[in-house]
Amino acid sequence: MVPEQTTSRDDLPPVQVQPIGYVVTGYDRPEVAPPQATENFGERASLVVYERYADGLSGLENCPHIWLVTWLHSQREDEAAELRCVPRGLTGTGERRGVFSTRSPNRPSRLGMSLVRVAEIDGNVIHFYGVDLVDGTPVLDIKPWVRGTDVPPRG
Amino acid sequence: MVPEQTTSRDDLPPVQVQPIGYVVTGYDRPEVAPPQATENFGERASLVVYERYADGLSGLENCPHIWLVTWLHSQREDEAAELRCVPRGLTGTGERRGVFSTRSPNRPSRLGMSLVRVAEIDGNVIHFYGVDLVDGTPVLDIKPWVRGTDVPPRG
Repeated sequence: MVPEQTTSRDDLPPVQVQPIGYVVTGYDRPEVAPPQATENFGERASLVVYERYADGLSGLENCPHIWLVTWLHSQREDEAAELRCVPRGLTGTGERRGVFSTRSPNRPSRLGMSLVRVAEIDGNVIHFYGVDLVDGTPVLDIKPWVRGTDVPPRG
Repeated sequence: MVPEQTTSRDDLPPVQVQPIGYVVTGYDRPEVAPPQATENFGERASLVVYERYADGLSGLENCPHIWLVTWLHSQREDEAAELRCVPRGLTGTGERRGVFSTRSPNRPSRLGMSLVRVAEIDGNVIHFYGVDLVDGTPVLDIKPWVRGTDVPPRG
């Protein structure tokens, strides 16, 4: 299908997203948090979902792995605004990459995606393995990890 | 690590996220859009990134697959607010699941994650394969797909 007419969409306004809860972890600032949840699947933390969203957790007990879509609140304002950054693997080389080609937490949107393993669900609290988030990070969404959706076809 | 003290974080305020661009597709409403990008890898569409973010695309030519983190603007307000929904596989059964255990586009955050394949990058326009988005959907972030980050360990 080809659109008959596509309007220009300059200056789309910011969107507003309401956090559904927050994580409780042992890391009080980004510098001490592990870089990737999947590299720290041995550690456990929890996600407190506000009571008013708790009904949305029904069925989650059947999801072994979930995405936490987060807002990386503790990144520094000046760093988050940078469009070029030094990715982890290039530290010391002086080479900078466009932020959208990296998984750096310093990014304009401040949006994070942490893939974690569900350990236990206790009412509105999800205990999980896989910790890369600073204590108090707002969680905007939870989605089940699904191989058919989250791995490229023939990938 | 265990936090010494974790403050309660009731009523976290909404976060604001600035779109970095928008997609151009042939679908003018959710009802006609394919349900998953990975199920429609044969179709091509494009993402227009605002010029002021274009420098952040450097290096993306080395990323075969990318995530588009989107704001699903065309979902109906009443449906997006629902905490229970009928997932695709259960249509007709009357069974409803908690929205956080599904990939339904109707969700409180309205946040979407589309995994797509980069076809070509032409300045600030990314042509990609894998289309499940309605024309004009705001894109909030682009992240490279990385097996080590996006597939559970021993998954």
